[in-house]
Amino acid sequence: MPPRIYLDYNATTPLHPELAATLTQSLPLYGNPASPYLEGRCAHDAIEEARDSVIRFLDAPSAEVIFTSCASESNNHILKSVLWEKWGFIPHLIVSSIEHSSVLAACRFLETTEKATVTYLPVTPMGQVTPQDVQTAIRPETILIFIMTANNEVGTLQPLLEISKIAKAHNLLLGTDAVQAIGKIPLSFQELNLDFLTFSGHKCYAPKGIGGIVMRKGLTITPLIHGGSQERKNRAGTQNTLGIIALGRALPLLNKEEKIRSPLIRSLSKKLSHGILNTVSETELNGHPTEKIVSTLNISFHGLSAESLVIALDMAGISVSTGSACSTGSIEPSYVLEAMNLPKKTRESALRFSLGLFTTEQEINQVLKLLPPLVSKLRKASR
Amino acid sequence: MPPRIYLDYNATTPLHPELAATLTQSLPLYGNPASPYLEGRCAHDAIEEARDSVIRFLDAPSAEVIFTSCASESNNHILKSVLWEKWGFIPHLIVSSIEHSSVLAACRFLETTEKATVTYLPVTPMGQVTPQDVQTAIRPETILIFIMTANNEVGTLQPLLEISKIAKAHNLLLGTDAVQAIGKIPLSFQELNLDFLTFSGHKCYAPKGIGGIVMRKGLTITPLIHGGSQERKNRAGTQNTLGIIALGRALPLLNKEEKIRSPLIRSLSKKLSHGILNTVSETELNGHPTEKIVSTLNISFHGLSAESLVIALDMAGISVSTGSACSTGSIEPSYVLEAMNLPKKTRESALRFSLGLFTTEQEINQVLKLLPPLVSKLRKASR
Repeated sequence: MPPRIYLDYNATTPLHPELAATLTQSLPLYGNPASPYLEGRCAHDAIEEARDSVIRFLDAPSAEVIFTSCASESNNHILKSVLWEKWGFIPHLIVSSIEHSSVLAACRFLETTEKATVTYLPVTPMGQVTPQDVQTAIRPETILIFIMTANNEVGTLQPLLEISKIAKAHNLLLGTDAVQAIGKIPLSFQELNLDFLTFSGHKCYAPKGIGGIVMRKGLTITPLIHGGSQERKNRAGTQNTLGIIALGRALPLLNKEEKIRSPLIRSLSKKLSHGILNTVSETELNGHPTEKIVSTLNISFHGLSAESLVIALDMAGISVSTGSACSTGSIEPSYVLEAMNLPKKTRESALRFSLGLFTTEQEINQVLKLLPPLVSKLRKASR
Repeated sequence: MPPRIYLDYNATTPLHPELAATLTQSLPLYGNPASPYLEGRCAHDAIEEARDSVIRFLDAPSAEVIFTSCASESNNHILKSVLWEKWGFIPHLIVSSIEHSSVLAACRFLETTEKATVTYLPVTPMGQVTPQDVQTAIRPETILIFIMTANNEVGTLQPLLEISKIAKAHNLLLGTDAVQAIGKIPLSFQELNLDFLTFSGHKCYAPKGIGGIVMRKGLTITPLIHGGSQERKNRAGTQNTLGIIALGRALPLLNKEEKIRSPLIRSLSKKLSHGILNTVSETELNGHPTEKIVSTLNISFHGLSAESLVIALDMAGISVSTGSACSTGSIEPSYVLEAMNLPKKTRESALRFSLGLFTTEQEINQVLKLLPPLVSKLRKASR
């Protein structure tokens, strides 16, 4: 059997070999980081080193890092903390309508409590929130704007710097879900004047089960998990030492790798995109042509159901996805493409290819060889 | 330098060598368990296998397993879900006053919301809740009794079977934090007629960052983390595949190991306990003499501060703890020993030794050799 071709880096990334080595070497580091004796101190020090690594990587000298189990937890932690402040009014939040499911579901939950209201901003057909819409949505009760850095399905970047200026002009808290941006574009917590940033390890070559929040120093939010005083009393529970160590090592590695690999990933993405759009009829590229994560390609193959294409490609040894793969077995139509106002035939036939550090030219050539006849065959069969 | 002697298994356990091998072998299993293609299905199948392992180990055929990041999350998840049900009255919970900090802090948080009330049951001087007190605490608004299986600091077992009968006679939900009991005593979810049981991987030789809830089938609780439909919509966020696999493998391993090691651990615990109590003056064993986890020894060394003894032992290469080591650097007096109504001098001088699978006779001999002169020296110095 030929080796598999993995083109779903936005869903999750393979463990980087260097991090696999780090993990294996760190397995004996078992002390409870809260314990005062040697084994505990070693684990504690390793965690603090990782914390510093996050601070440096995200240029966040005036922030602190809260390690969590995943970005979904991070997003829930920030958004639900709104429920427990003594505002004296019903607080209002502004998010985009194409946020990750953990943001949207947490916001919908907030609404059910009737203790918060939420505006879900529309996006352009290219998947961007407009600063004007952010401005217009602000009310006297608005307390927090939470907009993703880059969308997981189409890769579109949001105008965060402009949104930040608006947020700060109105003294509002600003948070971003940076899961899909980390390691792919330069990110400065400081320059963006952020209050919160959430991230995940398994989208940047570290293992699953580790994520975090970068939070402006001086802010306090109600814990989602109460208990021990871990993570400076922000998040109880014995820390995932191995995951934290791997994440801390992943970031400088990304810096190094991206410098080398970034031009190649860019050219391979272009090659794949041009190749598909030029050789397969009735295809279109969704999302923003330039303000995007280059390694994310969302392409519609009109007349086909994306699911059948995913299955056929899987059988041919190629792993791609239909938009967000974070929800188990969900074959619901993409709410992202719907919010972008794309027609049904475009939404239903949209495939996401996402490239990463280990994507090779050979793999892209192979996809470009296999895909066109596969699409023809499926189109014939579905007629 | 001689090898360290680790006697704090209740704080966390070393990774079992077989699980280290499992982890290393599983590193290439990187697919997102929610993805429909091969890599995703492999991860998904591995998780389901682990789920079955938990069900089997805990004899819980009519329950489901929700994997979380730690027992603190599990406890918070269950307890805070109480806030979001439409009870039509202010629900009342019954817990013991010696629960893990994640239970007590979550309960205190519930009280601050004024949407729930909590009774914290007293315990006997040996650390047990009495069934009579449980019975007396029940009110018309009581919905949930949540009592730990075994206490982390003194190892005392709670009369869960009797409490279960009371709970069921009153149609109340019953949950237990079984973190300190798993692998140490036989546990049957079914026989105890439980609704919830929480557990943690890093107390049973799996890595940190993984825990779970066993929940009676048919029950629904509001997620703590909203988002994707992972864990049958009970807990959003990409699963910690590696942690889950290790946990799933840890349980049958515990079954096997405990059968072999259990008599040895029991005899080593006795040897350590007798050795200390007989050779060091002014010492006493706290907790229940028989209804306890045998590997947990809580011993007071009157006239000494437990912290200074922990530090001195650490310098001598021995890792032990002062009660719960789950709270970073906290040297607060033990609320467990306080609830047991032990005098100040007993509380302040209490040390916890907890043995485990890898404890050897040689280690116990070494502790019994080093400890008495160390205690004498410290006592002299503190006079």
